[in-house]
Amino acid sequence: MKNKFDKIKRTSNKELDKIIGKPFKVLNDGFVRLIDYLGSDSAIVQAARVSYGSGTKKTTEDKGLIRYLLRHQHTSPFEMCEIKLHVRVPMDTWRQWIRHRMANVNEYSTRYSIAIDSALETNEDKWRLQAKINKQGSEGFLDRSEGKILTKEEIELHKHLKVVYNKRLELGVAREQARKDLPLSTYTEAYWKIDLHNLLHFLDLRLEKNAQYEIRKYAEIIGNEIVARWCPITWEAFCEYQLGGVTFSITEMKILKEIYLNNKKKVIQIAKEIGWINPEDAKVSRNIERLEFEEKLKMLGVEIKWK
Amino acid sequence: MKNKFDKIKRTSNKELDKIIGKPFKVLNDGFVRLIDYLGSDSAIVQAARVSYGSGTKKTTEDKGLIRYLLRHQHTSPFEMCEIKLHVRVPMDTWRQWIRHRMANVNEYSTRYSIAIDSALETNEDKWRLQAKINKQGSEGFLDRSEGKILTKEEIELHKHLKVVYNKRLELGVAREQARKDLPLSTYTEAYWKIDLHNLLHFLDLRLEKNAQYEIRKYAEIIGNEIVARWCPITWEAFCEYQLGGVTFSITEMKILKEIYLNNKKKVIQIAKEIGWINPEDAKVSRNIERLEFEEKLKMLGVEIKWK
Amino acid sequence: MKNKFDKIKRTSNKELDKIIGKPFKVLNDGFVRLIDYLGSDSAIVQAARVSYGSGTKKTTEDKGLIRYLLRHQHTSPFEMCEIKLHVRVPMDTWRQWIRHRMANVNEYSTRYSIAIDSALETNEDKWRLQAKINKQGSEGFLDRSEGKILTKEEIELHKHLKVVYNKRLELGVAREQARKDLPLSTYTEAYWKIDLHNLLHFLDLRLEKNAQYEIRKYAEIIGNEIVARWCPITWEAFCEYQLGGVTFSITEMKILKEIYLNNKKKVIQIAKEIGWINPEDAKVSRNIERLEFEEKLKMLGVEIKWK
Amino acid sequence: MKNKFDKIKRTSNKELDKIIGKPFKVLNDGFVRLIDYLGSDSAIVQAARVSYGSGTKKTTEDKGLIRYLLRHQHTSPFEMCEIKLHVRVPMDTWRQWIRHRMANVNEYSTRYSIAIDSALETNEDKWRLQAKINKQGSEGFLDRSEGKILTKEEIELHKHLKVVYNKRLELGVAREQARKDLPLSTYTEAYWKIDLHNLLHFLDLRLEKNAQYEIRKYAEIIGNEIVARWCPITWEAFCEYQLGGVTFSITEMKILKEIYLNNKKKVIQIAKEIGWINPEDAKVSRNIERLEFEEKLKMLGVEIKWK
Repeated sequence: MKNKFDKIKRTSNKELDKIIGKPFKVLNDGFVRLIDYLGSDSAIVQAARVSYGSGTKKTTEDKGLIRYLLRHQHTSPFEMCEIKLHVRVPMDTWRQWIRHRMANVNEYSTRYSIAIDSALETNEDKWRLQAKINKQGSEGFLDRSEGKILTKEEIELHKHLKVVYNKRLELGVAREQARKDLPLSTYTEAYWKIDLHNLLHFLDLRLEKNAQYEIRKYAEIIGNEIVARWCPITWEAFCEYQLGGVTFSITEMKILKEIYLNNKKKVIQIAKEIGWINPEDAKVSRNIERLEFEEKLKMLGVEIKWK
Repeated sequence: MKNKFDKIKRTSNKELDKIIGKPFKVLNDGFVRLIDYLGSDSAIVQAARVSYGSGTKKTTEDKGLIRYLLRHQHTSPFEMCEIKLHVRVPMDTWRQWIRHRMANVNEYSTRYSIAIDSALETNEDKWRLQAKINKQGSEGFLDRSEGKILTKEEIELHKHLKVVYNKRLELGVAREQARKDLPLSTYTEAYWKIDLHNLLHFLDLRLEKNAQYEIRKYAEIIGNEIVARWCPITWEAFCEYQLGGVTFSITEMKILKEIYLNNKKKVIQIAKEIGWINPEDAKVSRNIERLEFEEKLKMLGVEIKWK
Repeated sequence: MKNKFDKIKRTSNKELDKIIGKPFKVLNDGFVRLIDYLGSDSAIVQAARVSYGSGTKKTTEDKGLIRYLLRHQHTSPFEMCEIKLHVRVPMDTWRQWIRHRMANVNEYSTRYSIAIDSALETNEDKWRLQAKINKQGSEGFLDRSEGKILTKEEIELHKHLKVVYNKRLELGVAREQARKDLPLSTYTEAYWKIDLHNLLHFLDLRLEKNAQYEIRKYAEIIGNEIVARWCPITWEAFCEYQLGGVTFSITEMKILKEIYLNNKKKVIQIAKEIGWINPEDAKVSRNIERLEFEEKLKMLGVEIKWK
Repeated sequence: MKNKFDKIKRTSNKELDKIIGKPFKVLNDGFVRLIDYLGSDSAIVQAARVSYGSGTKKTTEDKGLIRYLLRHQHTSPFEMCEIKLHVRVPMDTWRQWIRHRMANVNEYSTRYSIAIDSALETNEDKWRLQAKINKQGSEGFLDRSEGKILTKEEIELHKHLKVVYNKRLELGVAREQARKDLPLSTYTEAYWKIDLHNLLHFLDLRLEKNAQYEIRKYAEIIGNEIVARWCPITWEAFCEYQLGGVTFSITEMKILKEIYLNNKKKVIQIAKEIGWINPEDAKVSRNIERLEFEEKLKMLGVEIKWK
C-alpha cells in the first residue's frame, strides 16, 4: 500500500446540503435541523475496505458490502459517519432521548438563560388512554368531550406556571432555582452529535411501535428525512434487516420446523415441554412468549390452535 | 508468573457493609443508599501492579502508588472499582446528574408506574438570588418576607399539579401522557452504578463551588459518607490533588516567577503582552483570566497592583 | 415508596465464590480467572423493578422478566452486574479482544517489566488451512507431515526471538524498545472488568462460528464456566434468544410465507425482483444473501430449488 | 428562539482542505493523513452558546469563551468537533494507541489480507537505554558500535520472519494463523475517528515527556500539523493551560505560600508533617512527591534546601 495515496476530498452530499439548517417541524413546536455531517455510504465502504488493502475496490459491490456489514453486526464501519442535529424537544421526551449515552450533547441551559417560553400542548382529541396489556403504553383516545376539559385545564395550567416562573424571576430568584416547577412539557433545545451506528440503534428502539408517540415522531423525521438522504443504501438495509427483521429463538425455530413439516403432534409436545400448554389439562397458559410467537406466525400466514 | 496463583477472596469492607441499604437523607425528601460495591484501595494497587509482574509487592508502598497514579492521570486502575447506589433526586437535579454518561442507570418509570408523590420544596428563607457576575449561579437569599409568599405559592402549586395529574389518571389517560405537566421538582429514583474513576470525575465537577446547591448536596454525601469509607487512601489523595489542586498556565507560571524574583517591571510587561493591562493608558482591563489569577495569588498570600 | 427500605445485603453467590481465583486453562498456556463480581440474576430483576415501584415483586416471575428484557433489548438492567477477570492471552488474540471498548482494562506492561516468557505454540496437526469462501476464516488442517516442519520451525523461531530480546536487555536497551520484535504469539496478561450487557455482546460475537478459534476458546470458558454460574437464568435466555436466535429480513419473511402457502410462483417472482434469480435466463445468481437464507431454511427442514 | 433560524452552512476550513489526503511521514514508514473533519473553533462556540439563547453572540468574545471552557473543564462543546485520520503505525505503538477507547476504529485486517510488508527499523544510533529512575522509560542511547550489531541482527531477523510468514502462506495456512509470529514492529493501518475533546486528552497524555518516543512522534504531527490548523484558538488554549499548565496540591500551595512569605521555619515544619523530612534526624526522605515539587519550584526560579 506504500506510497500510493488516492486523491481524496471531504464527503459532500448535495441532497443533504440542500436541507442544512432547515427545520423539520415535530409536535406542536418542536423541530429537527441538520447542522453538519461527516461521511456517507461510501465512507462506510472505505472503512470496511481498509481491511482488504488496496486493489479489491469494485464499486458495484458497495451495496452488497453494506448489507453484509449490517446483517452481521460488523458495526465499526458505520461509526465512521457522524451527524450533528439541532433539536427542540419537550423535556419529558428529552428525558428518554438523553438515555442514549453514546452521543455528544450541548443542551440549552435554564441556569444561564430564561427557559424557552413554549410547552407541548395536547389537543382535545389527542389524550391517549392507558393500554390494557402493555403497562407502559397507550391505546386509543379519550372522548373528545372529556379531552376538551383536560385541554382547557392544561392551557390554564401552563399560563399559571408561566406567571409563577416570571414572578420568581422578577423578585430576583436565581434562574437555576426559579425553574424548579416548570412542567416537563416545557421545550428545551440541544445540539446532538452522534455516529451512524449509534443513531441506527436509537432509531431501532425509538421507531418501534411501543416507543412513546412523541419520541417516535422525532425518530421518524430523523430516519425518513435525514438518514434516508444521507446514507440511502444503509438506510434501506437497516429497514430491511434491523427495523423489519423478525427473530425466532431456538425453540421457536424448532416449532416452526414442525409446523412446516405439518407435524402437529410434535408441535404440541414441544409446547407442553416449555410450558405454553399445561400438560395436565392441555389448556393454553397465559404466556407472553407464546403470544409474541403467534404474532410472528401471523406474519407468515400461519394460524395455530395449540390442540 | 506461571502457575503461581495467590489465593484470593472477593473484596470485603466491613465499614461499608455496615451502611449497605442505609438511606443518607439529602434535601427535603431525597436520599442516597449504597447497594453494592466491587473493589477497594487494594484492588487499585492490584490492578496497577499487574504491570510489574510478581515480586514487586510491598504493601507499605500502596499509599504512595495510589497518590502517584492519581497525580499522573493513570486512571485505569481506578476503573477497577465499581459501586452501585440507589438515589432519590428531584428531576431537575437528575437532568444534570444524567449528563455523566459513563455510568449505568435504571430509573423509576413514570410510564409504567404512577409518579412518586413528592417534590422538592423550598423553605421561605431558602430562595436564592441570581448571582451578579456568574450568569449561571446564585448568591445570597431573598428576604424572608418575600420568600414566604413564594413558598406559600409553591405549596399551592404542587397541590394543584397533583390534582391535575390524578384527574387525568382517573379519566384513564395513559401514565406516559398524564405526567407531562409534572413539575421538574418531582422526585425520581434510580439505581446508579459507576466505576471509581468516573465517580471521582463526577465528584470533582459537582463538589465545585459553582455546582448547583442541590446536586452539590448529593455529591457531598457520596464523597464524605461513601467514598471516604470505601477507598480512604484514594479519597484522601483525590481531595489533596484533584479537588484541592490549583493549576497555573504557562503564562501564569512566568508571572509567578517574576513576582518571586520581585521583578515588577517584567510582571507589568507580561501583563501588557497578554492584554491584562492596556498598553496605551496602562489601565487594567476587565478580564476573567486575570481575576482568576488574582484569586490564586490570594491563596499564596500575594497581592498584586498591576502598576 | 417513602421511608420503606428493605434490608439488603451485598450480592453473594456460593457457586461463584468457589471458583474465585481458580485458573481455567485455555490454549497451551493461557487462562481465565474470576477475580470479583457484583450483582446476579436478582440484581437484574431488582433494577428492572425500580421502574415499577414497590408492591409488584413476585419472585415467581423473575425468570419471565429476565427473558422479556433480553428479548426486547431492554439492556440497562443487565448493566447492573459487573465482573472482573484476570486473563492470560496471546497478544494476537488480545488485539481482537481489546476492540471491545466498553470494558475496563489493566494490562501487563512490557515497558515496565520483562515480557512474559511464553508464546502460543502450534501443534503439528493444528495448522489450519485458509478457508476458500470466507476470506477471513480457516477450514481443515494442513497435512501433519507439513505441519511438523512448520512446528519445528516455529519452536526454533521462538527460541531465537528470545535470544534476541534477552541480548538487547543485557546490553541495556530499554524494555520499551527491546520488545519491538517480540512475536504476536507472546502471551500478555490483563485484569478485565466489564458489565454483563457488554460481556454478553462480547460473547455473542466471539462465540460465533466465524470468530477466530483462539478467542472462541476464551469465550467458551467465560460463558460456560463463569456466566453460567453467575447469572444462570440470564445465560439460558441469552443462549436461547441471542446466541441461538435466527433473524429473517422483511423480504425473507415474505418468501417464507409464500413457501408455507406453497405458492411457488410467488416465491420465484420475489426472488427475481430482488435479484436472486436472473429474470432473463431464470438462472440463480451468486448471492450471499440467498445462500444465507438457504442455510436458515435448512434449519426449518425446507429445501428450495428456485425454479 | 422560535422561528428565527440563521442560515447556516457546513463547516469548511480552507487551510485544512489543502492537506486532506496528504501523508505526514512519521518514523521510518508510518504516516498520518487527514481524511475528513466536522466542526471548528466556531462550532465549539456555537455549541456553548446554545446555552445562552440567541442575542448574546459577540464574535469578539469567541477566544475568551473557548479559553474559559477549556480552563474550567466544560468539555462538551469540544465534543462537537470530529476528525477522521488514516494512520500507519507499528503494532507495538498501536497497542498503546488503541487503549484510548473513546474513538472509532477500522483497522487493516491481517485475517482478511496479507500483512503489510513493512516493519519499524531501528538505526544503529537509535537504540535507547533503560532509564535508571523511571522504570518504564528510556534515556540516552547505546554506543553506536553495539547498536550496529543490534541493527544488523534486526534486519536479518525481519528478513527471516518474512520468509517464515510467506512459507506458511504458500503451504496454505490461514492468514489468521500464519500471522501469529509477526513481530510487534510490523506496521498496521487504520481509520481513526475521534472528537476534539477526546483527541486533546490523547494528545495531553501522548505529548508528555514520559510517553514513549514512537507514539509521541505521532502525537506531535497530529497536534502541530492538524489540530493547529483545524481549531487554532483551541490549540493555543490547550497548549497554554492543559499541556503546559502546572498543578499544585493543597499542601504544595501551603508550602509555596510560606516560601513567598519567606517563612523558612514554617516550610520545614510542613515538610516534617508530611514526611518529606525525617523529624528525628532532619534528613530529607526519598520521596517522589518532593522531587516533583522541586521540579515545579525550579520553573518558578525557586531553589529549596529543606534545612
